[in-house]
Amino acid sequence: MNTFQSKDKKTTELIANWQTLERIFLRPKSESSRKALVKYMEQILFGLNDFLKKHVGITEEASLKELSDRFKNSLISQNPARKLSDVIEGIIKDIAPHAVNVSSPYFIGHMTSAIPYFMVHLQTIVSALNQNVVKLETSKVVSVFERQVLSKIHRIVFKKNDAFYDKHIQHPDSTLGSFVEDGTLANLTAMWVARNAFFKPKNGFSGVEKDGMSKAYQAYNIDRSVVLVSRFAHFSLRKSGGILGIGNSNILPVDVDGDNRIDIKKLRAKIDELNHESSRTRILAIVGIAGATETGAIDPLTEIAKLCTENQIHFHVDAAWGGPTLLSEKYRSLLSGIELADSVTIDGHKQFYMPMSCGMIYFQDPKIMDHVAYYAAYVNRPGSVDLGIKSLVGSRAAVSLTLGSALEIMGSRGYALLIDHGIETAQAFADEIKERPLFELITSPRLNILTYRIFPEDLKKDWQNADDNRKKEIENQLNQINITIQRLQREAGKSFVSRTTLKRTSHENMVVLRVVIMNPMTNMVIINEILDEQEELYRTHLVD
Amino acid sequence: MNTFQSKDKKTTELIANWQTLERIFLRPKSESSRKALVKYMEQILFGLNDFLKKHVGITEEASLKELSDRFKNSLISQNPARKLSDVIEGIIKDIAPHAVNVSSPYFIGHMTSAIPYFMVHLQTIVSALNQNVVKLETSKVVSVFERQVLSKIHRIVFKKNDAFYDKHIQHPDSTLGSFVEDGTLANLTAMWVARNAFFKPKNGFSGVEKDGMSKAYQAYNIDRSVVLVSRFAHFSLRKSGGILGIGNSNILPVDVDGDNRIDIKKLRAKIDELNHESSRTRILAIVGIAGATETGAIDPLTEIAKLCTENQIHFHVDAAWGGPTLLSEKYRSLLSGIELADSVTIDGHKQFYMPMSCGMIYFQDPKIMDHVAYYAAYVNRPGSVDLGIKSLVGSRAAVSLTLGSALEIMGSRGYALLIDHGIETAQAFADEIKERPLFELITSPRLNILTYRIFPEDLKKDWQNADDNRKKEIENQLNQINITIQRLQREAGKSFVSRTTLKRTSHENMVVLRVVIMNPMTNMVIINEILDEQEELYRTHLVD
Repeated sequence: MNTFQSKDKKTTELIANWQTLERIFLRPKSESSRKALVKYMEQILFGLNDFLKKHVGITEEASLKELSDRFKNSLISQNPARKLSDVIEGIIKDIAPHAVNVSSPYFIGHMTSAIPYFMVHLQTIVSALNQNVVKLETSKVVSVFERQVLSKIHRIVFKKNDAFYDKHIQHPDSTLGSFVEDGTLANLTAMWVARNAFFKPKNGFSGVEKDGMSKAYQAYNIDRSVVLVSRFAHFSLRKSGGILGIGNSNILPVDVDGDNRIDIKKLRAKIDELNHESSRTRILAIVGIAGATETGAIDPLTEIAKLCTENQIHFHVDAAWGGPTLLSEKYRSLLSGIELADSVTIDGHKQFYMPMSCGMIYFQDPKIMDHVAYYAAYVNRPGSVDLGIKSLVGSRAAVSLTLGSALEIMGSRGYALLIDHGIETAQAFADEIKERPLFELITSPRLNILTYRIFPEDLKKDWQNADDNRKKEIENQLNQINITIQRLQREAGKSFVSRTTLKRTSHENMVVLRVVIMNPMTNMVIINEILDEQEELYRTHLVD
Repeated sequence: MNTFQSKDKKTTELIANWQTLERIFLRPKSESSRKALVKYMEQILFGLNDFLKKHVGITEEASLKELSDRFKNSLISQNPARKLSDVIEGIIKDIAPHAVNVSSPYFIGHMTSAIPYFMVHLQTIVSALNQNVVKLETSKVVSVFERQVLSKIHRIVFKKNDAFYDKHIQHPDSTLGSFVEDGTLANLTAMWVARNAFFKPKNGFSGVEKDGMSKAYQAYNIDRSVVLVSRFAHFSLRKSGGILGIGNSNILPVDVDGDNRIDIKKLRAKIDELNHESSRTRILAIVGIAGATETGAIDPLTEIAKLCTENQIHFHVDAAWGGPTLLSEKYRSLLSGIELADSVTIDGHKQFYMPMSCGMIYFQDPKIMDHVAYYAAYVNRPGSVDLGIKSLVGSRAAVSLTLGSALEIMGSRGYALLIDHGIETAQAFADEIKERPLFELITSPRLNILTYRIFPEDLKKDWQNADDNRKKEIENQLNQINITIQRLQREAGKSFVSRTTLKRTSHENMVVLRVVIMNPMTNMVIINEILDEQEELYRTHLVD
């Protein structure tokens, strides 16, 4: 047994002994190492935008192979291999240049983007405080603060009155929502709660959480339970079905309409089909999307809510992407009906511009999470205010401190500027696509996401007189062209647009280029450069 | 539409406009605000141990009420409410003093403790890079780096040879493990994989992930599936049973032996009871614990492994706490048999001394996670190296960068010093308890956790001649005494020991004080102060 107070006195750098450990654990001993670290950390804390306008850096496959070869040692060294300052220098020089510059305004392919520099400061504080929000005894005021942040977001979604929030905001028996790692786990939490609320205890049956799915079906005299979603639902909903024992084949996709929204007629027909009198199938939940991952489409939330109310079905809205649009006075009406949901997913690391990772799930009813409460003797005892009682996850970081602070620093109007910029830039992008003969706009932006594809003029002409077989050929050819151009542009490393395969119906398989605009530095100058590059790549590589 | 390049020119502080946003988003404009921020951040990056030896600060319930009243505003302000520097000052002055000082060496009640200051630097870099490890396109080299870190930890657990790691470390089809938010989700992942591996597809049945639990039982001609665990298993295993549709009442607790380890005879008897010929129950997994949350006990892993092999049952080890003991040459043999597991949970934010939150799950078989693979058109396409394909969670931070760097900075021997210190200090603590007549040692430390209770001498005498009714009375009285003293000490705010209710058998309900030693600054001087305080509190408050 030893402690820092009784350390041995030998000084040998990079040998694991108590003296080294004291330096490693507590703080740098010499003023010069401290200064070196401060210099690096300043670069990291304020230098985010030094990366801006540089290459996005998703290199070609070959380079991935090279990188892989550099990380093949699976042994942990016995003594310290490097000092902190050398490790940081290594990250800056060897890792960062081969990471993806998601903060580049030319990186418009995914829902990961530039974040305000202050977010890094706030996350640093979260790490330094190292509170564990699973229980009050390791977080205290931070648990109280988190409840406030949950109420603030709950309020922009569900718009309850002052009396509601006064009552629930700090009441230990009320749970307005919960932080989880990401949107996948938020959707899983929503489906978990919906499943348990449906299969609640009744005579001789202790509820699905306790007795399991098979007994639940017996108790409720059914063979199958399903969840209805749009074809554009995020794959985490299928995954949730798999995890929860519902079976992912019972997450039933409903076709979309011309605006890529769930086809409400088909949804109603599906409900009627499943709800006939002798049916041994039950609908556990219907999911509306507020910002589809691939198209940004927003399902007709009010109409879905009406169907759910009529049929007493849990209504979940996956607003992982679109949720923060509620902060924009100009565009919040796009999400009308979200306040009628039973549960809503929102991601902080998406349009709240937080660093990875901050998923959130919100519930209209402050008691519904009672269906997933767990207690333990050493923490989370009944009656306590521990946030871990009703939560998918146990130990977790106090990222609510970052989100709550960000709301203060930005104000809702600050966020609205970002949201509005994204939506309006996406509209301008779509207009530009329509102007350029090489392209075809596939899904107009509803929020700040759009899809389009390269559709060369000669093939467009061809298409007009083509029979079904020829059309299929052309479609295949277009898919290959778009896969190639997307890859070439990614490999060139200057800009990044993603690609996906749209399946609006069960037989569609259309490869499209997908654009997500959330970086406030992304403007039409940059967008035109990106489109020019695609045209150039097409001419150089695919036209003989 | 607007961008920073076309911002308006009015300057009004704390009004949400494009000019303010530029300052907020990109970096402080004036040299003086930057300097103020650097000063604060230096304090945060290097000042961790300024908190050391100060009060732990879990205040009395009344103060929680006061705090709650201070966080009751549920409205988001429209314009920025505060500048970053004011927010940080607010956190330092108003939040931090009411947070829990988990880094105090007097805070020995939970598995959250002091972390080396360099961890905060590394997490800052992780936030600044903002890579999303769900896919290569938003992480590139960081995904490759993460695979290396997974291999390093896999290797200390499973001890495969060079050829094994050369083959799997960077092979896209191999998955040695996965990062999740915490131990709860790691255990959930393990049970998810075990469930799916058991209920795999067979004629007419597409597997439980696709078809659900009810159909799985039909296909396998059973009524019930169970998981066997020690009574001291973490409650996340019950939760996993609930989530996965197994039912948490089917996570069956087995009594422990005199050393608080799962009673191997009872376990064998339970297996035999469930495995009789006409049984319609199947055992999906058996869990061994390597460091029980409440007692630090380590189950007899080799014997459990033998039973699992004989009966072809998935063997999971929950080493969320104890895993890093494998880095100690002196004590790693305590975990002998862990290398025989099919899956192993380890938490980075526990004895790898990382900040919240870093759970990990490891698998012996690099292909077993194929049972939980999910694909999507826009990411995670088949054949890609995207880490999100076989993962409970989707978007997540690159915390592997912190763990991998920490392994380099500490070396395995650096970690071993911390581990050894914890174990040996806990042993000395137990010895001290035996010396003090007011106390009774309840569970000797196997690792660095022990439990004891206050058992006044007069009651000890009483006990010797008591009948069963009187014994029950004394037990109740002892429980009340220990609840009171633990609360009084917590409220005094100088030190923190946790309490739990031990249930080694189905009828036991013993309130004990629980100690977790992981802070290298915690030594016998401090421990004696803590015990002196408990004695003093007992004399002052409970002796007339």
